[in-house]
Amino acid sequence: MTQPSPPASGVPTPVFFLAGGTGISAETLGNMLIGQFPGVPFRARKIPFITTVERAREVVAQMDAIHTDEMKPLVFSTVADEAVRAELIKTECAFIDLFGTHLDTVERVLHVNAAHNVGSVHGLGDRGRYEARMKAVDYAMEHDDAQSIKALDQADLILIAPSRCGKTPTSMYLALQQGLKVANYPLVEEDFDSHQLPAPIRPYAGKCFGLTSTAARLSQVRGERRPGSRYASLPQVTYELRRAEALYAMHRIPSVSSASMSVEEMAAVILQSMENGRR
Amino acid sequence: MTQPSPPASGVPTPVFFLAGGTGISAETLGNMLIGQFPGVPFRARKIPFITTVERAREVVAQMDAIHTDEMKPLVFSTVADEAVRAELIKTECAFIDLFGTHLDTVERVLHVNAAHNVGSVHGLGDRGRYEARMKAVDYAMEHDDAQSIKALDQADLILIAPSRCGKTPTSMYLALQQGLKVANYPLVEEDFDSHQLPAPIRPYAGKCFGLTSTAARLSQVRGERRPGSRYASLPQVTYELRRAEALYAMHRIPSVSSASMSVEEMAAVILQSMENGRR
Repeated sequence: MTQPSPPASGVPTPVFFLAGGTGISAETLGNMLIGQFPGVPFRARKIPFITTVERAREVVAQMDAIHTDEMKPLVFSTVADEAVRAELIKTECAFIDLFGTHLDTVERVLHVNAAHNVGSVHGLGDRGRYEARMKAVDYAMEHDDAQSIKALDQADLILIAPSRCGKTPTSMYLALQQGLKVANYPLVEEDFDSHQLPAPIRPYAGKCFGLTSTAARLSQVRGERRPGSRYASLPQVTYELRRAEALYAMHRIPSVSSASMSVEEMAAVILQSMENGRR
Repeated sequence: MTQPSPPASGVPTPVFFLAGGTGISAETLGNMLIGQFPGVPFRARKIPFITTVERAREVVAQMDAIHTDEMKPLVFSTVADEAVRAELIKTECAFIDLFGTHLDTVERVLHVNAAHNVGSVHGLGDRGRYEARMKAVDYAMEHDDAQSIKALDQADLILIAPSRCGKTPTSMYLALQQGLKVANYPLVEEDFDSHQLPAPIRPYAGKCFGLTSTAARLSQVRGERRPGSRYASLPQVTYELRRAEALYAMHRIPSVSSASMSVEEMAAVILQSMENGRR
């Protein structure tokens, strides 16, 4: 495909994420799609909970008001309700139906008609799973940074690392999104001297997963908290990281680095590792 | 569409979520699509980080091994790399390309070619935004359940509610996913007697958002923590909820109920409320 007439440079293309529910799916996939056009500026807006034809009309009016001959807004929709969708597709903007397009394919494969319900993946739908997630958040809060070492036998996963390698956000993410009971435990100098895992987690080496970082990155992150401290100094973080990595290797604890990966990416790696460990 | 031959009842249809990155988008949209077939059992598996043609071949072999004439697995893919995708579509399973289908449309609207990069929406991509999210998690941890009342002036949002209405998971979700600095603060009996907001948050009523629940639900949740206690009794939770709701109304604090909404749904409502409040 050639590039006949790119949008007027500098003016952001308006983007709308429309949904019957929270809009998380529409936003996620829409962002992934527009992320494939790194040179193009966008201004995105999410409009969730579009559940009636009246509301759909308002939304269309609002979107069409900013549509011009030069600027066609992009609309990503996961609205499942047929009547609401029929109203939304009347828009003059470019309407990208993230739902209907694929639903027909799935119907053909399954030989079953779709329900066309309001998307409820992010609702209370599966109560059991939802409550397990909420309990996992409680557990992760209680077992953050070795605050409690009770009930470590109930942990699905124990994250270990020197201070500020990302234990807390990774624990919270896995608890909230996956319903995993995650404890996290800091590695400190005395652990490095003994070449042993800290006593409370020693019986659970098989549930441990290590985080690392680079010295430069860790020094920077610690420096934001305690500028100019020994804690944040390059020699200190270099020492801690090297010893932590040796500890992981000795005790066969898999690890990832938060310097090169996001919380989401680390979580995906950890989940794969847990799955492989169960085999 | 009629229902000529539904899949053999009871046998779950295999579902694969394939991605070059974490697989979060593939899983999210795939789950939304199969969620439209509530009567059909599925067994889903996510395969993230498919970044080479060799890996794609392995994945296809693995999927095709369970494909039979009676059972066609569903494959949802967000793989963006052209060469990897070309390999994956050789599968005998039903291949649903969540990406390519819509990318062409977006290219036509924008008159720009897509980069076909590995999806990096869930990577470290936007460093500034990523670090804001991590700092927001730190903030939410430090300001959970009134643990710290320092720096409340820096809060983007203060969640208030009686104990166990969902303040903590909602705070964590908004911090992790939206990068909002969320403090949360419990409402206790003395607040109800005075008809005032607790002193530390009184200057920030404009940033407050209330959570409620139903008496039945809150009594159940509290009962799991302290069975048979006054704290979990119906009269007590009824009193606290009624007074909390009166407090919200008096001080013009918007609220949602965690009895009928998930954390994701409450977050979406809160974000809309904040957006409307800024207007």
